[in-house]
Amino acid sequence: MMSTHAKRRVSRSQTAPWLLVAALGGALNPTAAHAMDPSFSLNSQGELKRPVGYREWVYVGAPVTPNDLNNGKAPFPEFHAVYIDPPSWAHWKKTGQFREGTILIKELVSVGSKEAASGKGYFMGEFIGLEATVKSAKMFPKEPGNWAYFSFTSADHKTPKSTASAQPTAECNSCHQGSAAQDWVFIQYYPVLRAAKGGR
Amino acid sequence: MMSTHAKRRVSRSQTAPWLLVAALGGALNPTAAHAMDPSFSLNSQGELKRPVGYREWVYVGAPVTPNDLNNGKAPFPEFHAVYIDPPSWAHWKKTGQFREGTILIKELVSVGSKEAASGKGYFMGEFIGLEATVKSAKMFPKEPGNWAYFSFTSADHKTPKSTASAQPTAECNSCHQGSAAQDWVFIQYYPVLRAAKGGR
Repeated sequence: MMSTHAKRRVSRSQTAPWLLVAALGGALNPTAAHAMDPSFSLNSQGELKRPVGYREWVYVGAPVTPNDLNNGKAPFPEFHAVYIDPPSWAHWKKTGQFREGTILIKELVSVGSKEAASGKGYFMGEFIGLEATVKSAKMFPKEPGNWAYFSFTSADHKTPKSTASAQPTAECNSCHQGSAAQDWVFIQYYPVLRAAKGGR
Repeated sequence: MMSTHAKRRVSRSQTAPWLLVAALGGALNPTAAHAMDPSFSLNSQGELKRPVGYREWVYVGAPVTPNDLNNGKAPFPEFHAVYIDPPSWAHWKKTGQFREGTILIKELVSVGSKEAASGKGYFMGEFIGLEATVKSAKMFPKEPGNWAYFSFTSADHKTPKSTASAQPTAECNSCHQGSAAQDWVFIQYYPVLRAAKGGR
């Protein structure tokens, strides 16, 4: 489960202060965006500060794996709204690769209504968790693909944590390594990424 | 069905050339954004030009109403990825209202995989259609809530149309008027809008 949190410290100690996550305005200007790397940082405890403003980043897809379809015991019983940070989006469009410093957000959204005027189905309810993955050879040289995974989801699923340590490698990576279509990312389920992929 | 297209002309004739849909960079700067109204226009035939760049707008939610759950005959058997244009998003955050000139996009995305490493569910497949609604008292004074609805979805679900006429009022409005939580918009299914709503 992504909601269990590892206390393992990442190997690299950093003393630099927080760098703000790329702010909205300029970050979506590709020219400005490239100058803003890195758009995040770890604190001296090796923790990632909870990203902000990500609902204004570029949304790439939203799978849902509800309890109904998993014998009431879905490992991830909610919608996952997935976003990429704007500078990394600009890079992806140009090169088709996830750059050093890419941040992908997975916001957990509960299944709300299951029936609406448009029919039976799954409709988003409330925000119940926040996960992030960061690709950085500098910061995570030993992680597969240099991706580290962080969970800000709190036990009550209401107020996300302000910081998170990297999860143990096996906890998230095993599925990503075995099943993700490119560079540990499930782009096969993210049509926005597939359609915009550059460098081909 | 949203894929049937009305030939009805909107009542207001306009001869102004196209105005480009708000470009990405400046549009997400709220200060600049407000200056960009209107970010769209109708042509002299009363048609809306297909919006571009909307996958970099602000995503608000993605319901899915698959055939599986609707006796194989879902009226909308796909995911709907819904976006709001950036200047109207800035206005929504400030006021909690949809401003004159709001454009909401509903991109139709087929159900792709139904099973993944994360469990059984619904995963996005391919883009198969594009719908939009525009709120404008100036352009659509007789439409309920001043919302007009447009479908760019093509018969083959591959290449969306470059322009679209407004749909007949009843075709889309009946559900929106009867069931949408605010101003003919289904904000009850769009947690991003609900969470950011200003003016309360």
